Amino acid sequence: MNNALKIEMLSTGDEVLYGQITDTNASWLSDFLFQHGFTMTSRFTVGDNLNQLIDTLIKRSKENDILIINGGLGPTSDDLSAQAAAQANNEALVLHQEWLTVLEQYFASRARKMPPANIKQAMLPKSASIIDNPVGTACGFKMVINNCTLFFTPGVPSEFKVMVENQILPDLKKLQPNIIKPLCYRLTTMGRTESDLADEIEKKLSVPAGIDVGYRSAAPIIELKLTGKMSDQPIIDNLWEQLKHLVSDNLLYEGTIGLAGIVSKELRDKSQQLVVLEEQTAGLIAYQLYGENAPLIKSETSTNITHRITELTAQFPHALILYLGQFSDDNSQFTLQLATPKQTYRYRLKYRSRRYNRQTEQQIFSAIALDALRRYLTNQPLIGPNTWLDVIENNVPNQ
Amino acid sequence: MNNALKIEMLSTGDEVLYGQITDTNASWLSDFLFQHGFTMTSRFTVGDNLNQLIDTLIKRSKENDILIINGGLGPTSDDLSAQAAAQANNEALVLHQEWLTVLEQYFASRARKMPPANIKQAMLPKSASIIDNPVGTACGFKMVINNCTLFFTPGVPSEFKVMVENQILPDLKKLQPNIIKPLCYRLTTMGRTESDLADEIEKKLSVPAGIDVGYRSAAPIIELKLTGKMSDQPIIDNLWEQLKHLVSDNLLYEGTIGLAGIVSKELRDKSQQLVVLEEQTAGLIAYQLYGENAPLIKSETSTNITHRITELTAQFPHALILYLGQFSDDNSQFTLQLATPKQTYRYRLKYRSRRYNRQTEQQIFSAIALDALRRYLTNQPLIGPNTWLDVIENNVPNQ
Repeated sequence: MNNALKIEMLSTGDEVLYGQITDTNASWLSDFLFQHGFTMTSRFTVGDNLNQLIDTLIKRSKENDILIINGGLGPTSDDLSAQAAAQANNEALVLHQEWLTVLEQYFASRARKMPPANIKQAMLPKSASIIDNPVGTACGFKMVINNCTLFFTPGVPSEFKVMVENQILPDLKKLQPNIIKPLCYRLTTMGRTESDLADEIEKKLSVPAGIDVGYRSAAPIIELKLTGKMSDQPIIDNLWEQLKHLVSDNLLYEGTIGLAGIVSKELRDKSQQLVVLEEQTAGLIAYQLYGENAPLIKSETSTNITHRITELTAQFPHALILYLGQFSDDNSQFTLQLATPKQTYRYRLKYRSRRYNRQTEQQIFSAIALDALRRYLTNQPLIGPNTWLDVIENNVPNQ
Repeated sequence: MNNALKIEMLSTGDEVLYGQITDTNASWLSDFLFQHGFTMTSRFTVGDNLNQLIDTLIKRSKENDILIINGGLGPTSDDLSAQAAAQANNEALVLHQEWLTVLEQYFASRARKMPPANIKQAMLPKSASIIDNPVGTACGFKMVINNCTLFFTPGVPSEFKVMVENQILPDLKKLQPNIIKPLCYRLTTMGRTESDLADEIEKKLSVPAGIDVGYRSAAPIIELKLTGKMSDQPIIDNLWEQLKHLVSDNLLYEGTIGLAGIVSKELRDKSQQLVVLEEQTAGLIAYQLYGENAPLIKSETSTNITHRITELTAQFPHALILYLGQFSDDNSQFTLQLATPKQTYRYRLKYRSRRYNRQTEQQIFSAIALDALRRYLTNQPLIGPNTWLDVIENNVPNQ
């Protein structure tokens, strides 16, 4: 990977710069490139400002082999990418008759008159070659500035993706034909801190150069990633087994299925129906499970609903009833119960990590509840080893 | 604003570069700076690669007056910011005893042994001065490279915000003491498209240079922003009244309280309790209302729960019962009901905008339901004028 192409994504638009919209094109592109052996080296974001855009195209083209510019190809006056490209390369914007014909056909086939504003979308830098857009009115285009190949693409995700797949990837493969696809394994853990995990892994795992252990933390879950070349698969497979063994007490799942996803799968596999009762989490546990098509009979959210456990157990004797209570701010305690056809598990738990905002804490508590359910379904103790969660009482018989 | 500071945010970390996590720090920072009269000029994102980080710090410091680096201050080996800063400025990483003492106290006060990995967090470039972190173990630090002031901050949002407020903003104000705070008004609408709103506003509103109308779309809500200099307040106030008049049929609220926020406030102001029954939205309506401390008695989520409306009306005769049914994928229809102490409103609605993923569609339907509640509480027809929502039937008497 020493002579890897320097590939930068250049996102444009005030909304992206100011973070008002999530740049889903960026995550999709980096993942897509990665899967094909390429790496997005960096990403640069600027707003809707012509001079800044021109300056950026000139400077970033000097720094990179490939620039993938996203956004600014629409018909309105704050869509500035084509004009900036022309000025950056000191050339004229000219009418590309080829695309004007496509536009006229596009509108004619829909029995609509082409608005004059759309002519702008066929005005491209003189040296540009068109990248077809089979799904919209903004063509992409490609040109070379300062020895760097620039691909200009629309912000609409479906149009952007088609261009990356049909044009940009084949071009990259021509530039770097012997690209090696990477191998990447992922797993997630809960209950240990990132530094604690890293300490143990660095101590016990001998990771050769060219293979990376990566960490990604999204409270309360920490994802571990093992990445290397496909040609190193035997070594990576072996390291992966060691890594899984090291974290086995805290392992949630391998891959990217998600905690609600793995719980839903376990429920479906065991034909086990569920009812969820939530206080602190305000519906978040059920919302996540519904999103994964869990066999959920119903969910209720309110305050002081422990009495509903008994009522619902009577009503649905074959279902699991999962209850997560109120979080007491003063002593950081809460109650988790799981009523099964055979017995009721009851835990009084104390959370002793740092405090987050309400939404993040709800994420943390819902993960604890979902993990308890996962552990029950896989015949493990409901609360695993956890450095930031204490069991204050457990299995107090249900009233 | 001609001599405005060039302020760039430099986000680090594979998970940000690859778009695996939403960079909420970027949106928060750009908004915070804007409110204080500063503008984030650009944003640069790089992964966890030491050489690239060093190179980036050197080059971006030459291009900007201020660099706000975010992330990479954690205790693990892929947290590289301090090391990169030292190498970029050709100086040593040294132990800052001052921060080591803070760390030792942090762990001692929690009766925990400090993991050895955390010592790394007190190893900073020699010329760096510490930026205090009152809420975590990663201190920030400040140093000057190539005449540019670099602020290194942690990725954890709460820790990042404290540092921006306590240290970075005061420093920026010292560099540019005569900064003019902008005036910015916001409102949100639902039911019209962005281009439709923009067309009418451009046609009917005469906006002088130096004042901007901005749009921000997050399905199904479109936010309008009117921005200018504080010294233009009389003109802006006048435009604001005209703008509000133009969109009055579709206005949700002024400011940034949020739809669940304004509904919760109306409920509290009127001492009106609520029960929520959800099918398609799977708990999202209730979750949002709980987050705003709405007077919510309870919520239930399941399939086919229309019969619960009558039962809950009997149980809670003074409460409002809000029901949102299942979305039929084939003909895009769903039922919305609001049972009040006096009567039950029932609407069969047809959604006819483009299809999104499940989560976004749940956001759209929950916004329709919350808006119906808001409109009821403010004595308006429950369904407002809407270009993408048809009323198929209404006020069919409840069974």
